[in-house]
Amino acid sequence: MTAVPHRDAAPAVARTPLDELTALVADDIAAVNRVIVDRMDSPVALIPQLAGYIVQSGGKRLRPLLTLASARLCGYAGESHRALAAAVEFIHTATLLHDDVVDESNLRRGLASANAVFGNQASVLVGDFLFSRAFQLMVEQGSLEVLRILSQASAIIAEGEVLQLSTANDTATTEAAYMEVIGSKTAALFAAACRIGAVVAGRPQTEADALDAFGRDLGIAFQLVDDVLDYSAAQARLGKTVGDDFREGKITLPLILAFARGDAEERAFWRRTVEELDQVEGDLARAQTIVARHGTLAETVARARQFAQKAVAALAPFPDGREKRALAQVVDFVVDREY
Amino acid sequence: MTAVPHRDAAPAVARTPLDELTALVADDIAAVNRVIVDRMDSPVALIPQLAGYIVQSGGKRLRPLLTLASARLCGYAGESHRALAAAVEFIHTATLLHDDVVDESNLRRGLASANAVFGNQASVLVGDFLFSRAFQLMVEQGSLEVLRILSQASAIIAEGEVLQLSTANDTATTEAAYMEVIGSKTAALFAAACRIGAVVAGRPQTEADALDAFGRDLGIAFQLVDDVLDYSAAQARLGKTVGDDFREGKITLPLILAFARGDAEERAFWRRTVEELDQVEGDLARAQTIVARHGTLAETVARARQFAQKAVAALAPFPDGREKRALAQVVDFVVDREY
Repeated sequence: MTAVPHRDAAPAVARTPLDELTALVADDIAAVNRVIVDRMDSPVALIPQLAGYIVQSGGKRLRPLLTLASARLCGYAGESHRALAAAVEFIHTATLLHDDVVDESNLRRGLASANAVFGNQASVLVGDFLFSRAFQLMVEQGSLEVLRILSQASAIIAEGEVLQLSTANDTATTEAAYMEVIGSKTAALFAAACRIGAVVAGRPQTEADALDAFGRDLGIAFQLVDDVLDYSAAQARLGKTVGDDFREGKITLPLILAFARGDAEERAFWRRTVEELDQVEGDLARAQTIVARHGTLAETVARARQFAQKAVAALAPFPDGREKRALAQVVDFVVDREY
Repeated sequence: MTAVPHRDAAPAVARTPLDELTALVADDIAAVNRVIVDRMDSPVALIPQLAGYIVQSGGKRLRPLLTLASARLCGYAGESHRALAAAVEFIHTATLLHDDVVDESNLRRGLASANAVFGNQASVLVGDFLFSRAFQLMVEQGSLEVLRILSQASAIIAEGEVLQLSTANDTATTEAAYMEVIGSKTAALFAAACRIGAVVAGRPQTEADALDAFGRDLGIAFQLVDDVLDYSAAQARLGKTVGDDFREGKITLPLILAFARGDAEERAFWRRTVEELDQVEGDLARAQTIVARHGTLAETVARARQFAQKAVAALAPFPDGREKRALAQVVDFVVDREY
């Protein structure tokens, strides 16, 4: 999809579909960034050090962007959505910090992860701090409905993470269990981030539900693509980190499909590498070859595109305009990455 | 202090001052326990398994008891305080789960800790789940003021835990830094647990402030005594676990005072054992001997008694009666443990 240049958009270098949205809510996102920096502060110096390290480590701010754009789509003209978008980012950041501890990761977005730099202990505790701060920000905005939505989403995220833990290293994991995991650990926060845009704008339940459905399907598409990218040879050529899921024995759709279609020798390979985590040099390359041979990356992307289409369709109740176009372009951004 | 037998109190075997309070709110605490069991449930089986393990592992439910009794002291006749007391216990349980991961503990209350049984990963995530559930419970009760108080307390607890991390293994830690740590990591939740009793009862700010002060001073007394018990020979004779703080290099008041009063040889001992964590058989016994020689356990208890007196004094605005007597007896319970 070609982004249409726009007068008030930032000068475009290597434009992506996300630029349209970022330009649309440029003032809002700048305000969100100020709230984030302001509210991650603490007299305990390690907190802003660690929080700043992860908050400023190149995340796309996708979830707060969704809150901002959803509120705008609903005609919201106030400023409450900025603090709520920051709260969404704090919840997301807290889960990243805890995920890296749980996964024993040393890298995130190609940089040393916060736990690798500051230790697991500080990562757990600063995650708790940011999570608490998120709720303080919500309380200040005064909407019990927003608090209800995001406390529920947070509980569901934790359930999804625990479920993922239960399926790790288990090649018998079903597609249904996997979809349950990504619906909870990823899509729940996308859905909530969008839904609160309608709530803060005081729009009726039908619009909140439509934005919830949009966010949920977008979140599933996002995670499916993320799981594809982790096996992607193209990503490796771009210098991106690949193979994290494989090395951790995390069971994702490309692997589930490849295991189902594999012969005895391939299944023995998967059992050794992801169940027993007995991996040697060359195993990741072999895993990539196997998933490519069975076409499971392309098939996972095709499923992502189905969810992406559903997401766009969910926006039907809203009037056409820049906001709706920008949200539709986010969907393209999510699925049109290089595999 | 001798507990006065009461007609509707449970039959007393080895009565403690806490029995009076427990009897006073017996119906409430039974309801709280039902809420806890009900709301820690999840389709993800590991969550109720792990949460149940720690929730039912013999905690005294001190913090929810404080919420229940505070609400009663304020004349509250509804049932909202039960869900809020459960929320307080969930927040406390979440911090215990995360603490054990941070401290790399294998024991809690003499039993294998949840992380030792279920792993650090599950402990981090189930802590997050319980924390989220706490906020869901609060949202259901509909008080933004309660949400404000407990989200703030949660942020302060996390700050206190991070500060404690920064002072660990540092014999130069000041008394002021230590008091800051325990005021945040422990007393903030005691204060909040009491304050919300006044809020749920719709009482004026002065009463909320009085209960906050009561809880805060009680919490500080509680932690001071806990830190004494960790060096206590009497506790060891009772079969209780001692020496956790020493083994982890956690800097508490008995150690701070002993270090300040120690000679060069003793300071070298503390530096080796708690700074470098280079400990050998017999070091805990020697640490206990040193703190006893300098009288730092007795002095720490004396400080706890000062805070206990302040706590009791903070209840002055409230009418005499069973509730106030029971809360005063909790103070005795906290400081009259065997050192």
